[in-house]
Amino acid sequence: MRFDVLTLFPELIESHMDFSIMKRASDGGVIDVHTINPRDYSHDKHKKVDDTPYGGGAGMVLAPQPYVEAYEDVEKLENSITLMMTPQGEPFTDSISNELAGYEQIIILCGHYEGFDERIRDIIKPREISIGDFVLTGGELPALCVIDSVSRKIEGTLGKIESAHDDSFSDGLLEYPQYTKPREYRGLKVPEVLLNGNHKLIEEYRLAQKIERTKKKRPDLWVKYQKENF
Amino acid sequence: MRFDVLTLFPELIESHMDFSIMKRASDGGVIDVHTINPRDYSHDKHKKVDDTPYGGGAGMVLAPQPYVEAYEDVEKLENSITLMMTPQGEPFTDSISNELAGYEQIIILCGHYEGFDERIRDIIKPREISIGDFVLTGGELPALCVIDSVSRKIEGTLGKIESAHDDSFSDGLLEYPQYTKPREYRGLKVPEVLLNGNHKLIEEYRLAQKIERTKKKRPDLWVKYQKENF
Repeated sequence: MRFDVLTLFPELIESHMDFSIMKRASDGGVIDVHTINPRDYSHDKHKKVDDTPYGGGAGMVLAPQPYVEAYEDVEKLENSITLMMTPQGEPFTDSISNELAGYEQIIILCGHYEGFDERIRDIIKPREISIGDFVLTGGELPALCVIDSVSRKIEGTLGKIESAHDDSFSDGLLEYPQYTKPREYRGLKVPEVLLNGNHKLIEEYRLAQKIERTKKKRPDLWVKYQKENF
Repeated sequence: MRFDVLTLFPELIESHMDFSIMKRASDGGVIDVHTINPRDYSHDKHKKVDDTPYGGGAGMVLAPQPYVEAYEDVEKLENSITLMMTPQGEPFTDSISNELAGYEQIIILCGHYEGFDERIRDIIKPREISIGDFVLTGGELPALCVIDSVSRKIEGTLGKIESAHDDSFSDGLLEYPQYTKPREYRGLKVPEVLLNGNHKLIEEYRLAQKIERTKKKRPDLWVKYQKENF
């Protein structure tokens, strides 16, 4: 899986790839992350990429020329999709992540400052994705969330230390409570059912816990789960 | 504002703080980000922090001892809150970000692998926050999203290049379309209304655009906006 990230701060993407499972996936050739800086494509003699907004208002707006030309210069593989990280996009979910994992290449446009000139959307026509109803300094953290989440779905990224299929949301419910050693810590004991080795009872306990948690913490997910499963 | 991040991968937090607006906020003394590695608190001779789950299942579970002791060792300021980044938490929003900006200290617990031993929750009683219905390798990217979003709300973080009050969500609606120079790019023109200098008309146009976009792209936000404003 190849990722091409258009960003004014390539270091934010690159430095993250140097650590943890992303590094392992990258070193193992499972994912391949490139960055492209639209600033390198600016025709301005000072390599400017933004300017004041027409109609007034605070902040700066990312001008179309550097972004559009940088985008056009990215080598497109056949099975490729282009995303724009923006608070205006559709909310990113585990099921979108599954869908994205089916592509060969994901091109991601990251903004900064006040936002993109609208004509960047008009020309590139990206799928707009938001990671939540909050505002960040730039699209780099959201892009890294997409890269991390999608990479986990690809064979070869996760080692024996973890596995994606037991995760929250893989069946539309939150995860059950987890316990490891010791059996008792500061007076708090591991539930008896997890110690008796009866796999049927353990499964029943875990499913009941998942349902209880989802009902309590995320009634919206529970409504959705009922619609899809009953 | 002080942030203390408990993480097994402090480099993921630290490397991000070296760039962009986070660096400026950090250098300017507006925010102060510390990392604490629970591994340094492990009593295990190999500094192990996780173990297999009771009751079976894939992956590893973060043991209570290193996390609880690391947490207890963090100096707590008077006006402090503790968060746990987990897909099971309440969805992070701009209004939670505003609320968090009122604290003097935010302590953030990041997980990795399969998740936390439930007793870590029982003992520390953190506010559980999720940045969305998707699963990541660890809590570091979500923690960085919280740090970035909250930092933007604090006086002194944002320079003249941007401002938080015009953002998406600040009034419950998505942002209006932005345009900057040139007036025409590849045949696409900036809307006339933005060029005529009539501020009343510009304001009307922008509000109409915000409403139209929110209705179209995020009907859920539009329903909420109507309830709160009419």
